[in-house]
Amino acid sequence: MLSKSNQKHLNSLKVKKYRYKNSAFVVEGEKIVQELLQSNWTIRQILAVEDWLMAHESLLKPRTERMIAISEKELRQISNLHTPNKVFAEVEMPTPSLKRLSFRQHCLMLDHLQDPGNLGTIIRIADWFGIEAIVCSKDCVDVYNTKVVQSAMGSLFHLPIVYEDLTEILAQYPQQTAYGAFLQGDSIKTIDWNNKGWLIIGNESKGIRPYLHDHITQRITIPRLGQAESLNAAVAAGVICGFAC
Amino acid sequence: MLSKSNQKHLNSLKVKKYRYKNSAFVVEGEKIVQELLQSNWTIRQILAVEDWLMAHESLLKPRTERMIAISEKELRQISNLHTPNKVFAEVEMPTPSLKRLSFRQHCLMLDHLQDPGNLGTIIRIADWFGIEAIVCSKDCVDVYNTKVVQSAMGSLFHLPIVYEDLTEILAQYPQQTAYGAFLQGDSIKTIDWNNKGWLIIGNESKGIRPYLHDHITQRITIPRLGQAESLNAAVAAGVICGFAC
Repeated sequence: MLSKSNQKHLNSLKVKKYRYKNSAFVVEGEKIVQELLQSNWTIRQILAVEDWLMAHESLLKPRTERMIAISEKELRQISNLHTPNKVFAEVEMPTPSLKRLSFRQHCLMLDHLQDPGNLGTIIRIADWFGIEAIVCSKDCVDVYNTKVVQSAMGSLFHLPIVYEDLTEILAQYPQQTAYGAFLQGDSIKTIDWNNKGWLIIGNESKGIRPYLHDHITQRITIPRLGQAESLNAAVAAGVICGFAC
Repeated sequence: MLSKSNQKHLNSLKVKKYRYKNSAFVVEGEKIVQELLQSNWTIRQILAVEDWLMAHESLLKPRTERMIAISEKELRQISNLHTPNKVFAEVEMPTPSLKRLSFRQHCLMLDHLQDPGNLGTIIRIADWFGIEAIVCSKDCVDVYNTKVVQSAMGSLFHLPIVYEDLTEILAQYPQQTAYGAFLQGDSIKTIDWNNKGWLIIGNESKGIRPYLHDHITQRITIPRLGQAESLNAAVAAGVICGFAC
């Protein structure tokens, strides 16, 4: 059963301030929760309809002590989805530290990315191409925003994603190339990708902000053959990773 | 002023059946309407707040006789956007025929694509890379769906997009390579893209349906280096176009 206080608590996690106050966020739906169960992230509670709980009991037991059977109606009262899907989990935010990056593969750097769907899609792209880590500027959309979590799918659990001062991070790796995506630059088709480094993607409408320009050692561009004004930021990240990785 | 009958008519265009009955769809917001004005598509009416109409009078006059000044409140009554943006246009559907394709550049073929945001993003991608045409299977999401139109931005006006029987179309161009995107195939990094042809992208969850498999002359794949199960269909289209075009 869903208590009133738990319902209130879970709904508060829709708001960034309360997510950080509680160091917790939510994950919903069968598929992502399956991936959550395979991760080593700390699960604070699982709320699910009874048949789902029964079917997953053995998987759940080692992962959390708090399993709560709820009705479809109760699920709708906490769900963020149009079509709630059986299971809802409260997860503890990890505290990823970057440690020392190996640069065996490129890392992604995101400057002021604002659209949750774009960030989620970029996390999937990064996971597909084996990107080592994602470093976001502190004003990027929150990775624990429900829309980001749901569009990232299980990839959220597969690589470190941190919020840092981008110029400080770049300064820590002076040997690494900082490849910045611009409308003008050297073609991604012809440059040398052997020096693994930072693939830097800017804001959806304004691109990479000027304060970073001096730190970029290689301006890159996706050659335009037609008339479109721009590519979606997540698509650009995908194309660049395709060539770079 | 917005008449009740016009309001009812414009709201009916949210539904596919009525769009096709009227051969019309809607385009909203300053930026896309600017691109519409530069196109040769037939505009049936423009409804806008007074200051926008005044500022664009000279551009509008040669394009439509029906310009209607409406209030912000009236705009909200017809708008499909969270934040209505000054102007709303009713546009006549074009009747693009494929004629004979030149294959100076690749063409895109979409099999059962269902997400409106994906189709809109793919139209922008196609426009960016100079794709000659997009051929959709008849059960793809409707290109005149409001979400498709808004996410395609002005690119909707830049290349032909048609709904056809895909096997019939493939049969008309027996010389052209049909490159189909699969989870297993030859790497897009190593295959020969010189023979321009069809870049075929499948459904978001099921990929390219079996009835097309025999028609595909080159199976291609985006090499996976990490753990993600799949890439978003629009991102996959972007990466493939990046290599192919």
